Amino acid sequence: MKLGAIEAGGTKFLCAVGSDPASPGEIRRFDTSHNPLETMAEVLAYFEQHGPVSAVGLASFGPIDYASGCITSTPKIPWQNFPIRAALERGLHVPIAFETDVAAAAYGEHVAGAAQGCQDFIYVTVGTGIGGGVMSGGRLVRGKMHPEMGHLLVRRHPQEPPSFKGVCPFHGDCLEGMASGPAMRERWSLPAESLPEDHLAWTLEAYYLAQACVDLAVVTSPKLILLGGGVCCQAHLLDKIRAEAARLVAGYLSLPEIASPALAYPGLAGALALAGEAAPR
Amino acid sequence: MKLGAIEAGGTKFLCAVGSDPASPGEIRRFDTSHNPLETMAEVLAYFEQHGPVSAVGLASFGPIDYASGCITSTPKIPWQNFPIRAALERGLHVPIAFETDVAAAAYGEHVAGAAQGCQDFIYVTVGTGIGGGVMSGGRLVRGKMHPEMGHLLVRRHPQEPPSFKGVCPFHGDCLEGMASGPAMRERWSLPAESLPEDHLAWTLEAYYLAQACVDLAVVTSPKLILLGGGVCCQAHLLDKIRAEAARLVAGYLSLPEIASPALAYPGLAGALALAGEAAPR
Repeated sequence: MKLGAIEAGGTKFLCAVGSDPASPGEIRRFDTSHNPLETMAEVLAYFEQHGPVSAVGLASFGPIDYASGCITSTPKIPWQNFPIRAALERGLHVPIAFETDVAAAAYGEHVAGAAQGCQDFIYVTVGTGIGGGVMSGGRLVRGKMHPEMGHLLVRRHPQEPPSFKGVCPFHGDCLEGMASGPAMRERWSLPAESLPEDHLAWTLEAYYLAQACVDLAVVTSPKLILLGGGVCCQAHLLDKIRAEAARLVAGYLSLPEIASPALAYPGLAGALALAGEAAPR
Repeated sequence: MKLGAIEAGGTKFLCAVGSDPASPGEIRRFDTSHNPLETMAEVLAYFEQHGPVSAVGLASFGPIDYASGCITSTPKIPWQNFPIRAALERGLHVPIAFETDVAAAAYGEHVAGAAQGCQDFIYVTVGTGIGGGVMSGGRLVRGKMHPEMGHLLVRRHPQEPPSFKGVCPFHGDCLEGMASGPAMRERWSLPAESLPEDHLAWTLEAYYLAQACVDLAVVTSPKLILLGGGVCCQAHLLDKIRAEAARLVAGYLSLPEIASPALAYPGLAGALALAGEAAPR
């Protein structure tokens, strides 16, 4: 059975066709147009060329609204409340499984990556923004909307430059405001990957992400936290986060394992798996 | 069908027999003995007198271990790792549903209280300690252990007396360390209920509990947060928390409803409901 997968991002779209989430096959990428209709035309042309598919998994940047199938608030105004799921349904005439990019990525790691066999874990990605997907008892957590853990409230590190207010346009110094890639770049005037391992930047980064790990642990009691994304691909950072989280939790409870995701494209893998579940039997 | 319910607390035990979680009937209470065998003897005598019951729901102070049926770490040393579930099974020869007191309370509010019909909500109790139960997609969240949200890391309020370090023996100024009943008493040398509505104490209390509401909202996206317990029964506090949470979240997302629980004994109600599910058909 041939299935489709889309990872819809604010700057680029990824499309793939396959049947095994562990190997999504060749990936087509194109820039996200300012005009959603242009991007949809590219997506539909891709599946016309590589299809037919039985179902499509759509892993979208958020926030999204499951009920209406829209991306809700985004700085890209023409995409606000654009009915992306309906546009795909009308063009492809197959079931569309609609998820956030990060929940789909969590699901991808669950079916084919570092969280296989784990029913209670959290996938966090730290890059341009910070977001995550939560699996509890083998199911993705949705609730009122979906998790938005990038906006956890964190304590400022005592050595934080007081002039740095954080980059979140809503909260300033929430988790994303203090620990995202743009936060590092604005604070140190250098991208994260160019900062040496012993730079204060990593002490602060570990402090913020460790707070997130502790807060996630005490709210949903996961067995595993996967930390991915551009900032977290620094191997030394994971050790610093583990040490800092252990210091913060102070022996009160046994922390979840903190590890790296396994997949290069967890969002696409998750989208393929979700497509498989949505496809007619 | 007659069912049993036990709410096992560190200072007192409550027992009831009934069939409807909405009305647990007459409640027997006795002090928690230093010796668990003494307390178990009282519990068994109660059910001998009021039984037979088809199953018992046991809502216990925690942390608990579901696998072994024990309370794990508690300052009451003889209760540490006491196999409370097995002791009841051996004495009563009926199925025992074992939950934390706060998860059972959440379940009680779900079946018979303020969270009826709501599949995604969080019950928090603020008293001697702070704890809570999480329901996601209609199921109680367990995971590696169970939620321990009393230990969320919070920011100190700018007007917090710097000499006050918080009362949590593990973390000092975590949520429980700053916002539990003992934290209020230690900071102001008065119990919470005797502090006037316009006292700074309530500004700080609302600040900490509002942070908890925002953190809970961004991690599990509940539709409803119920705030119960001795400290939160001050009606004016709920309004202060709602206003402070709205200020903190700054319009980024639509906050869950923040409300009071409806039941006088949500833990017993939940224990009865869980007993009903554990009883043989």
